[in-house]
Amino acid sequence: MNRVAVDALGGDRAPGEVILGALDAVADGIDVVLYGPGGLDTQGLPLVETTEVIEMAEKPADAVRAKPDSSLVAAVRAVAERDADAVVSAGNTGAMLAAGLLHLKRLSGVMRPAIAVPIPTRQGPSVLIDAGANADNRPEHLLQFAHMGAVFCRELLDVGNPQVRLLSIGEEDEKGNQLTLEAHRLLREDDRLNFGGNAESRDLLRGASDVVVTDGFTGNIALKLLEGTIRELLDALRDEITATPRGKLGGLLIRPAARRLRARLDPDTYGGAYLLGLRGLAVIAHGNSGRTAIANAIRLAARGAEHRVVDRLSERLPERVRV
Amino acid sequence: MNRVAVDALGGDRAPGEVILGALDAVADGIDVVLYGPGGLDTQGLPLVETTEVIEMAEKPADAVRAKPDSSLVAAVRAVAERDADAVVSAGNTGAMLAAGLLHLKRLSGVMRPAIAVPIPTRQGPSVLIDAGANADNRPEHLLQFAHMGAVFCRELLDVGNPQVRLLSIGEEDEKGNQLTLEAHRLLREDDRLNFGGNAESRDLLRGASDVVVTDGFTGNIALKLLEGTIRELLDALRDEITATPRGKLGGLLIRPAARRLRARLDPDTYGGAYLLGLRGLAVIAHGNSGRTAIANAIRLAARGAEHRVVDRLSERLPERVRV
Repeated sequence: MNRVAVDALGGDRAPGEVILGALDAVADGIDVVLYGPGGLDTQGLPLVETTEVIEMAEKPADAVRAKPDSSLVAAVRAVAERDADAVVSAGNTGAMLAAGLLHLKRLSGVMRPAIAVPIPTRQGPSVLIDAGANADNRPEHLLQFAHMGAVFCRELLDVGNPQVRLLSIGEEDEKGNQLTLEAHRLLREDDRLNFGGNAESRDLLRGASDVVVTDGFTGNIALKLLEGTIRELLDALRDEITATPRGKLGGLLIRPAARRLRARLDPDTYGGAYLLGLRGLAVIAHGNSGRTAIANAIRLAARGAEHRVVDRLSERLPERVRV
Repeated sequence: MNRVAVDALGGDRAPGEVILGALDAVADGIDVVLYGPGGLDTQGLPLVETTEVIEMAEKPADAVRAKPDSSLVAAVRAVAERDADAVVSAGNTGAMLAAGLLHLKRLSGVMRPAIAVPIPTRQGPSVLIDAGANADNRPEHLLQFAHMGAVFCRELLDVGNPQVRLLSIGEEDEKGNQLTLEAHRLLREDDRLNFGGNAESRDLLRGASDVVVTDGFTGNIALKLLEGTIRELLDALRDEITATPRGKLGGLLIRPAARRLRARLDPDTYGGAYLLGLRGLAVIAHGNSGRTAIANAIRLAARGAEHRVVDRLSERLPERVRV
């Protein structure tokens, strides 16, 4: 039985939606413990009382040190102290990363933790890694990200022999910047990876590969561009449609189709970003996560604990990544 | 009277659509000369005969040297030799860059040419620079790109005091990688720029700024991601809509609205990418440019020549960029 520690105060819609999402996960048989202030109405869920809160705008590293008894830090510490098997928060991403590094610590052999985000493509999820844990990376980091992404894909998304591609400015092997050209060579030489060469960003939403590897700066730019473009485009379409009576009628008729598309593209479907490379599984849900997103994040955290993703990462990384 | 040299064989739909686009530009009073093989039916437009062709898949630098009498290289040389004031091609982007560096050469003081692309946002065009002329950049390159983008914006898009922002992974000054942190400092210190700080990629299509500065790798990833996401999303929506009879009817009713949106987002509206920093104006139209795109690219090239964009760049860069 795996236990998931949930930061009851993380995210814009906490604690209300967090508690509802946690209840949904509990209904699936998951063991959830909330971390939050005493007196919180948890609707019967177990609560570990904490006294502090980390706000979204705080400087991560400072906040994590200054507020050891915040709901976020206490939930992360619960995993470090084996009181829980995974942690979920929709709070400050940087604080989760800082708390993870401080309390969970890196897995042996891991140079840099990375954020893995499942992108909802037509062919199913495509894992983008690193989506922003790092600002600057070296080629050997990208090789580790490839392995972490492959383990994530196999264990959590049930993809047999996941294909890994490297995000670059052309599909040809010789296209790229210094970082990707060198990373390409490392990926190509590693015969335990199913490496499919470079992928172009234009194919990201179409499903370029099971795993798309990139540095944290480029990955963060790509992820936010994808999210922002989807939102802006759907908003612009709605504005154009509602500008005429004919369009308005058409809009009513296509509403179910638009809803299906929105549901597929909604980041909530997969529940969040996975912080990989630490001695414990941490899931960062979107800041505006609602009930469904929180429930999905908890489900995937529990599944990760069940599949012992951290052990799988630990087994795979130190023996193979020697660069 | 400014003359535009047009590569009649550039692009997937050449020469047919190129000639039609050129005819439209001529109807606006622009002086166009085509570069292409003898015997080409130019519908009366003047032709300078060339004997070679550079294909899309050829290695740019090699092709440019091996085929000095290709339509692309000859059209670029026409600008170098003052037979024309600007050049337009929908052919191989890398070959245009290589031919530009070889025959037009860099403007004095310019470290690296850059590609400027107008992104069609709700608030009008936003210029992304560099969109892929460079794979690796240094901070001082980004400072030059900022100035080139500002000149482009003022002279070609009629924006009075263009705001410049730096693409990064957070709006806060301290968010970024080593390159953007240092570039941020240079941009901030340059009091002749209207610098608005960092911009996030999620706001790119919404209109983050008049000019968005980035390195060529990140800019190329961003541009292709934007284009690919728009295409994939509109395709996915059409598939969802046509999956049911109700949706199909709605689809008919919203068609004008969808067309308006597609027209606004169509890269053809602005005609292409501008290669800045050379001793001559070069415009790279999209590989699949049709008549309208080619005509718009020629119009903007003529406008650039009229506004003496190259002289404006030359005046502005050497005196101010000392890093």
